[in-house]
Amino acid sequence: MKRRDFLKRGAAGSVLVGAMATPAIAQSTPEVSWRMAASWPKNLEVTYGSANALCQRVAELTNGKFKIQVFAAGEIVGGLQVLDAVQSGSIEMGHTLSSFYIGKKPAYAFDTGMPFGLNCRQHNAWMYFGGGRELMDELFAKDGILVLTVGNVGVQMGGFYRKEIKTPEDIKGLKIRIGGFGGIVMSRMGAVPQQLPPGDIYASLERGTIDAAELIGPYDDEKLGLHKVAKYYYTPGWWEGSASVTAPVNLAKWKELPKSYQSALQVAANEQNLMMMARYDAGNADALKRMIAGGAEVKTFSREILDASYKATVAVMEEIAAKDADFKKVYDNWSAFLDNSNSWFRVAEGPLDTFRYYYAKK
Amino acid sequence: MKRRDFLKRGAAGSVLVGAMATPAIAQSTPEVSWRMAASWPKNLEVTYGSANALCQRVAELTNGKFKIQVFAAGEIVGGLQVLDAVQSGSIEMGHTLSSFYIGKKPAYAFDTGMPFGLNCRQHNAWMYFGGGRELMDELFAKDGILVLTVGNVGVQMGGFYRKEIKTPEDIKGLKIRIGGFGGIVMSRMGAVPQQLPPGDIYASLERGTIDAAELIGPYDDEKLGLHKVAKYYYTPGWWEGSASVTAPVNLAKWKELPKSYQSALQVAANEQNLMMMARYDAGNADALKRMIAGGAEVKTFSREILDASYKATVAVMEEIAAKDADFKKVYDNWSAFLDNSNSWFRVAEGPLDTFRYYYAKK
Repeated sequence: MKRRDFLKRGAAGSVLVGAMATPAIAQSTPEVSWRMAASWPKNLEVTYGSANALCQRVAELTNGKFKIQVFAAGEIVGGLQVLDAVQSGSIEMGHTLSSFYIGKKPAYAFDTGMPFGLNCRQHNAWMYFGGGRELMDELFAKDGILVLTVGNVGVQMGGFYRKEIKTPEDIKGLKIRIGGFGGIVMSRMGAVPQQLPPGDIYASLERGTIDAAELIGPYDDEKLGLHKVAKYYYTPGWWEGSASVTAPVNLAKWKELPKSYQSALQVAANEQNLMMMARYDAGNADALKRMIAGGAEVKTFSREILDASYKATVAVMEEIAAKDADFKKVYDNWSAFLDNSNSWFRVAEGPLDTFRYYYAKK
Repeated sequence: MKRRDFLKRGAAGSVLVGAMATPAIAQSTPEVSWRMAASWPKNLEVTYGSANALCQRVAELTNGKFKIQVFAAGEIVGGLQVLDAVQSGSIEMGHTLSSFYIGKKPAYAFDTGMPFGLNCRQHNAWMYFGGGRELMDELFAKDGILVLTVGNVGVQMGGFYRKEIKTPEDIKGLKIRIGGFGGIVMSRMGAVPQQLPPGDIYASLERGTIDAAELIGPYDDEKLGLHKVAKYYYTPGWWEGSASVTAPVNLAKWKELPKSYQSALQVAANEQNLMMMARYDAGNADALKRMIAGGAEVKTFSREILDASYKATVAVMEEIAAKDADFKKVYDNWSAFLDNSNSWFRVAEGPLDTFRYYYAKK
């Protein structure tokens, strides 16, 4: 926004305090107070902490003039109502996963990550330099929302299972706590996806009301202690090649911000996109070791299961694309990018990572 | 820095213009002009462009008050003299690779990346949440420098070769253009490392004065057209698990900055750390395809060569650690982090990436 435009809008902008009554230098740095509703409880300390760090950085960059207060899930808005609240303008912004809202629009899933999809680096490459940002801008603008990419959790674990899962047959009838696009694919494979709040999972697994539960990765999973009641901890969590966290912003409120505040919010979002992944990457290793010492048994999904899951994923995506124009538009761009990107990642990153991870020992 | 501290320092700070003569609001946002010397020519458009984007973001965040002007290699300082110029204070900051300066202190190499070392995500995890930042702060502060992490190029290619390299024997006597820590290891393996400016490589390979040349990755390598004179394009570039780009800042100049300007520079650095990698990740795939269409033949180093290179790398690192306390201090922390991190990355990221990169096809 040009400064002149800003001054013009300032008189009408509800967030601007005394814009016309103070000297020029203050007009470009008005006092602005926003509320951000997160989908996380405070004990998901990496995601919740990253939301806080984002707002703190924005305050620092604006000499305390642009204040954003973070609320945990349920404090002002339920964890799964964040996007709606941003759309209605009852809060200015949120901190959530777009995949929570695929019931509204399946194409939202691309903003988070798809089964067997882009890994964290590939997702960022697509989002910033491969057309993803423009597609998400267009998609969410239809609902009056702008989405900022504010983090990633990487490849998740495949969850906790009471019994070993060896072939696609073992998935049939499996009562598994799983949501999002992965839930749709698991359902197609014969599983019976369950919706359960995190606090109810332990008891349900212990009683056998459910057979399995998918969560996040070791750093967060460890807190629930599920390996005590379902010791098989499967990998990889193929439901997303990586899971990107999003901050939806009410588009009208965004447009009211001075350019330097938009810049502060954007750059702080980009910083947290880097930092959240780094913090999980630093914390997961030790958490997994502690879980293994506590009885978790790590198992890798068989090639047969991965093949069947991949096949089901592609079938589901193509079916949705055939009947949903929004989904198809993103899917065509995204899947071309994915294929092209894999053709490069398997040339340099793949071989060196493989040698380093598996073979090199002092 | 507290605002009161800043005002106290302001009177002495050479970069502060009229700090005591203007009203309070202006005192926290003085006009500051810095110069940044990059080690890159302008045609290395991703790295050079990222330096520019960093400075542009800082200007945006400070309403144009904190200006940093970027100079290409050779404009005010030679590409390999950037660190010295920052240390002496003749320029306020640079944009370079710390590994260019390992002749001065071998431990600087950890700031960039080591052979068979941390990949991009692992490097960020180590730097921000694994102790790397504190170790680099301590190491560089001895020379009056603060280093900001401002980018990464990921795993590089292994370079262009006139003849196939099949066993470690083929490396003996190989005249290869390579620098940094990888050059030391290649020398240990019997190669004869050569220093050559990029502009001279093509003719040297064509004439056979050198046998091979290592550069960066497809996006940058394509411009030199080396595959026309040395068609074997080897992978992976094991010289670094990833190569991180650094902006060294003169520590005294850094301390003179108001807190909000430090914050602006820090957050812009973090943003570019994300963006540079994303831009390379988005651009390398197509560049590689064009090179292959133009005659490049991609070859993967044999397991035998990787094993021998890995063994030589560990031997060299341990020898240096035995006689260099600065190196040892970083090496001990870094190698423990690397082992621990690999134990996690091979559980989830590794298996899913491997399935996706190599096996999954529609």
